[in-house]
Amino acid sequence: MTYCVGLCVAEGLVLLSDTQTNAGLDNISRFTKMFTFERPGERVLALMTCGNLSITQGVVSRLERKIQEAAADPALESILNADSMARVAQLVGTELQRVQAAYSEPIRRAGATADASLLLAGQRRGGQPRLFLIYSAGNFIEATRDTPFFQIGETKYGKPILDRIITPDTSIDLALKTVCISMASTLMSNLSVGMPLDLAVIRKDALAFATRRRIERDDPGFAAVSQAWSVAIRKGVEGLPSLM
Amino acid sequence: MTYCVGLCVAEGLVLLSDTQTNAGLDNISRFTKMFTFERPGERVLALMTCGNLSITQGVVSRLERKIQEAAADPALESILNADSMARVAQLVGTELQRVQAAYSEPIRRAGATADASLLLAGQRRGGQPRLFLIYSAGNFIEATRDTPFFQIGETKYGKPILDRIITPDTSIDLALKTVCISMASTLMSNLSVGMPLDLAVIRKDALAFATRRRIERDDPGFAAVSQAWSVAIRKGVEGLPSLM
Repeated sequence: MTYCVGLCVAEGLVLLSDTQTNAGLDNISRFTKMFTFERPGERVLALMTCGNLSITQGVVSRLERKIQEAAADPALESILNADSMARVAQLVGTELQRVQAAYSEPIRRAGATADASLLLAGQRRGGQPRLFLIYSAGNFIEATRDTPFFQIGETKYGKPILDRIITPDTSIDLALKTVCISMASTLMSNLSVGMPLDLAVIRKDALAFATRRRIERDDPGFAAVSQAWSVAIRKGVEGLPSLM
Repeated sequence: MTYCVGLCVAEGLVLLSDTQTNAGLDNISRFTKMFTFERPGERVLALMTCGNLSITQGVVSRLERKIQEAAADPALESILNADSMARVAQLVGTELQRVQAAYSEPIRRAGATADASLLLAGQRRGGQPRLFLIYSAGNFIEATRDTPFFQIGETKYGKPILDRIITPDTSIDLALKTVCISMASTLMSNLSVGMPLDLAVIRKDALAFATRRRIERDDPGFAAVSQAWSVAIRKGVEGLPSLM
């Protein structure tokens, strides 16, 4: 299973994903689910993936090949030169459709599922920070002020804290704490989501990653947040008015 | 959908359920999912139900008929005179099997599902407070010190707070606050779970309900807990160490 969460707030974009994949409970591996693309000063993109790993890796590898081809021939289009973030989402959706067309039926006949979904976040020079959820069929929706976050994978454990805290005006600092709690709650309640994590933060108009790092199992910052949160919610619950 | 949660702690049993049922999004009704049985000084039982409403109502109505029959003829067995809580769980499971045998196949042919599960909680004179989860097949498991709570229905949103707070030694007062938060988180994130709620508290060895009441949408106690929790977690998140 997988848990990826992306937030689009006024100050920018915050993205966090786990790295655990599994084919059954007895076959667990580590694969990154976050892929980042940067042309400093021009555009910054992050993709997070969920679902059939052969499908999502196929999409990423096709997108990377297009980037190389466009580097050799600027007349070709890629996610690094497309003229809007919406067009980037279209290109990702199109590659997803192509990989699905090649493999989804054979995968289904083999008794597995080819479902896959992606979160795309980023900003191009001259545009706004934007966040898209791209479905298995290649169609997509965009985060708005009403719904400033998307989740893919094992979404439920980590949703209540997002529902309570995140608004479009939440600061990057608070958004980052909140996605860490959302992930920590998911890690605690679902064994199929696992450390380490991949984190990316994109500040509005910086057109480069403010943070792009791996959070390992023994990361002192993440551990401090998890532990401080355990203390805070215990204190919070104990301090509630009594119902008896 | 449904959300029911039951806790078995050293001080006793805490049970909370919602009351919303739906057949599709456009057909929402209110039905209690908590059924209580009391012989003060002798035994106290509560059942919470989830799944196909015709199945679970059928089970409860068969159990009630057996109670009436046993009242007329004490040689007959019912959940109010069975000689252990495990035997009560067996009787509930057997009635569930009988209702399933009569209806599950026709229900399946009609394109619906007959799945149902129940939580059974209670104590008989001379025994301990016990909590069981009874599955669709009539089999059941019991809560232990390792796993002192069960949930049925829409379980995920409300699980992280239980995982963090509940141990076998959690007080009834804290357990009650925690199930209210677990329910409030579920209500906030899932439209198919709805107020009002049914609450029951059974203190160890009291052999009667300490609390058995409906929590209406405008209940001041529940609203105060929900609101105090919103404030507490916002303060808690804001007070976390920064990750930037």
